[in-house]
Amino acid sequence: MDVYSFLEAVRQKKPLVHHLTNWVTIYDCAQVVKSLGASPVMAHAPEEVADMAGLSSALVLNIGTLTSEFIESMKIAARAANKKGIPVVLDVCGAGATTFRDQKSFELLKSARVEIIKGNASEVARIAGRDVRTRGVDAAAVREDLGEIASLLANERDCVVAVTGEEDIVADPRSVFVVRNGHEMMARVVGTGCMAASVIGAFAGASPDRLSEAAAAGLACYGIAGELAAEECAGPAAFKERLMDRVFQLTADDVVTLQKVSP
Amino acid sequence: MDVYSFLEAVRQKKPLVHHLTNWVTIYDCAQVVKSLGASPVMAHAPEEVADMAGLSSALVLNIGTLTSEFIESMKIAARAANKKGIPVVLDVCGAGATTFRDQKSFELLKSARVEIIKGNASEVARIAGRDVRTRGVDAAAVREDLGEIASLLANERDCVVAVTGEEDIVADPRSVFVVRNGHEMMARVVGTGCMAASVIGAFAGASPDRLSEAAAAGLACYGIAGELAAEECAGPAAFKERLMDRVFQLTADDVVTLQKVSP
Amino acid sequence: MDVYSFLEAVRQKKPLVHHLTNWVTIYDCAQVVKSLGASPVMAHAPEEVADMAGLSSALVLNIGTLTSEFIESMKIAARAANKKGIPVVLDVCGAGATTFRDQKSFELLKSARVEIIKGNASEVARIAGRDVRTRGVDAAAVREDLGEIASLLANERDCVVAVTGEEDIVADPRSVFVVRNGHEMMARVVGTGCMAASVIGAFAGASPDRLSEAAAAGLACYGIAGELAAEECAGPAAFKERLMDRVFQLTADDVVTLQKVSP
Repeated sequence: MDVYSFLEAVRQKKPLVHHLTNWVTIYDCAQVVKSLGASPVMAHAPEEVADMAGLSSALVLNIGTLTSEFIESMKIAARAANKKGIPVVLDVCGAGATTFRDQKSFELLKSARVEIIKGNASEVARIAGRDVRTRGVDAAAVREDLGEIASLLANERDCVVAVTGEEDIVADPRSVFVVRNGHEMMARVVGTGCMAASVIGAFAGASPDRLSEAAAAGLACYGIAGELAAEECAGPAAFKERLMDRVFQLTADDVVTLQKVSP
Repeated sequence: MDVYSFLEAVRQKKPLVHHLTNWVTIYDCAQVVKSLGASPVMAHAPEEVADMAGLSSALVLNIGTLTSEFIESMKIAARAANKKGIPVVLDVCGAGATTFRDQKSFELLKSARVEIIKGNASEVARIAGRDVRTRGVDAAAVREDLGEIASLLANERDCVVAVTGEEDIVADPRSVFVVRNGHEMMARVVGTGCMAASVIGAFAGASPDRLSEAAAAGLACYGIAGELAAEECAGPAAFKERLMDRVFQLTADDVVTLQKVSP
Repeated sequence: MDVYSFLEAVRQKKPLVHHLTNWVTIYDCAQVVKSLGASPVMAHAPEEVADMAGLSSALVLNIGTLTSEFIESMKIAARAANKKGIPVVLDVCGAGATTFRDQKSFELLKSARVEIIKGNASEVARIAGRDVRTRGVDAAAVREDLGEIASLLANERDCVVAVTGEEDIVADPRSVFVVRNGHEMMARVVGTGCMAASVIGAFAGASPDRLSEAAAAGLACYGIAGELAAEECAGPAAFKERLMDRVFQLTADDVVTLQKVSP
């Protein structure tokens, strides 16, 4: 897979990526999109989300600090995105932690078409109907094969499913990609999971006709930036800064040499 | 213009700058005010905004992640600021992107006196009645002369208008300042526009009788810090950190040597 | 006091620390908990806060950007925490600045059991009934002896009271600890006060049977990280990054050598 061509598409098309995301990592979601060369916009008022989605090339929804009202705005935005034909990414952040998160996730999936479901192992397992309990927003162990769960969910909902973790898995109804880029320091930093969803949004917005490859390419680029960043620092805060800047600086050579994506 | 004297006024008076701002860049708005030697406070509950404005030396409003309720709190805060006689800065963040933002911006301008309107080229052009479309929160090209638009708007509303961009323009009904400080890296970082409004708020709060000069001096100091920071780093995240710290460290010599403000 | 054993307890038990906190410093509150080796989760919807508190080992409430609705969610979360028997930390951020903050603080203290009240000098003095006026969220001078105020409040409410400042004071109904760690750079950074409450939450969650010692140990470790960070940087933004990473890297040797906690 030519991962770099997907990054080039982001840099050339500079997609506007509309987010309704959480208040913890909202800045980082915006900055990672900007570091990629794309444009972020964050807007959640019910009166404007449809207009903003209408200006955009992708929509990223993240339920990290959800409320009932916020979910209603997400539904309006997602329906507008569906109407315009731009990809919708849903980060089911914290699914499996509370009943409320589970219910609202299923409500969202029912109320509009979601092209890419993204989460960590226990979040995705929960959305796939497994009886797991996420530890707040940190993944809990899942006993089954994650690739299989992702594939079944992708088939059931006819969408792309991206599971982030030590290895990232991207499944669509026909194929499964495994991305072996990344670094364990990413798990020590708050927001790397949310940023992954924003990265997927930017790549999907730039290559809307090849969604699963775009998602896998986005996760590979992001993981490569993480590997490069980890060489240069010892702690999570310095790492996050370097990660943002390595995303900004990624070269064709970095990507071609380091990409580890298997179909 | 003696730019440094305005920075000294901020450092000596340490104005309390009350913000109702957006959730994306709220931390950076607070920290840049603190780095200047002033005091930030963020508060938006309708029950307390008037009291908080009553303790403060300036009020900064930023509609970046507006909702209808949030705008109502802004109105209460702005009227309290007017009553106390402290300057109100309105960052029309994203005006021109959606009808809702335009309407709410005009509503705010109607409901209280705003001393300083701040935005990028297309945001300000939209508030001046031009038919432009902002790209989310990123400026779109404006064909007319920006100095002229700013002057006309300053005259029409009898206020100061600050347009940020490659060159910053600060217009009041009688004069126009052009600030040629800054660095293109600032456009790669999420929040530099919002931070500019907070900087203007701190300078306006310390020199409330000379608002257009204070705004121009604030933008010059901020731009100089940006120039110094850019020499020391390659990526946007490292740059933002250095920018904050260069704001904190600015010396009289930095400011006198590097200021590029023309009346 | 064996400060390091409390840090070890955090690292071994990795308590989940549920926050309802403010929008300014929410990221930093989460990251400092993660840097300590614990797990943060931020959730405020009234429909889920009881469930989330039920998964957690400590609850941290911070009224920095309060609204009436947000306080209602805090009450639900605090009652669930009481029911589960996990410690509740209340950061009375900005108490003394507006009547609304004072009222809501007292309302919270009345509606559920709070194990640890945390604030700066004027915030705590206000909660103890003194007639002081906080400057936004920055401490105002308090003329009385802070140790005495803290002790009286701890007795009156039968809880732990932590006052942060140049010296930190931790009082319970029987004893007072003074923590002389920390660095003046911490006062130049937005969010260090909020992060202190989150640190206390993590330590309290890991050692729920020794709350005042846990709070003092947490503040000592945090202050030591600040001292180490200050040696390595000149400005507040670089300092914050180093602070986060020094929290992550703290060794037994750092803690044993540098701790300054007196009973």
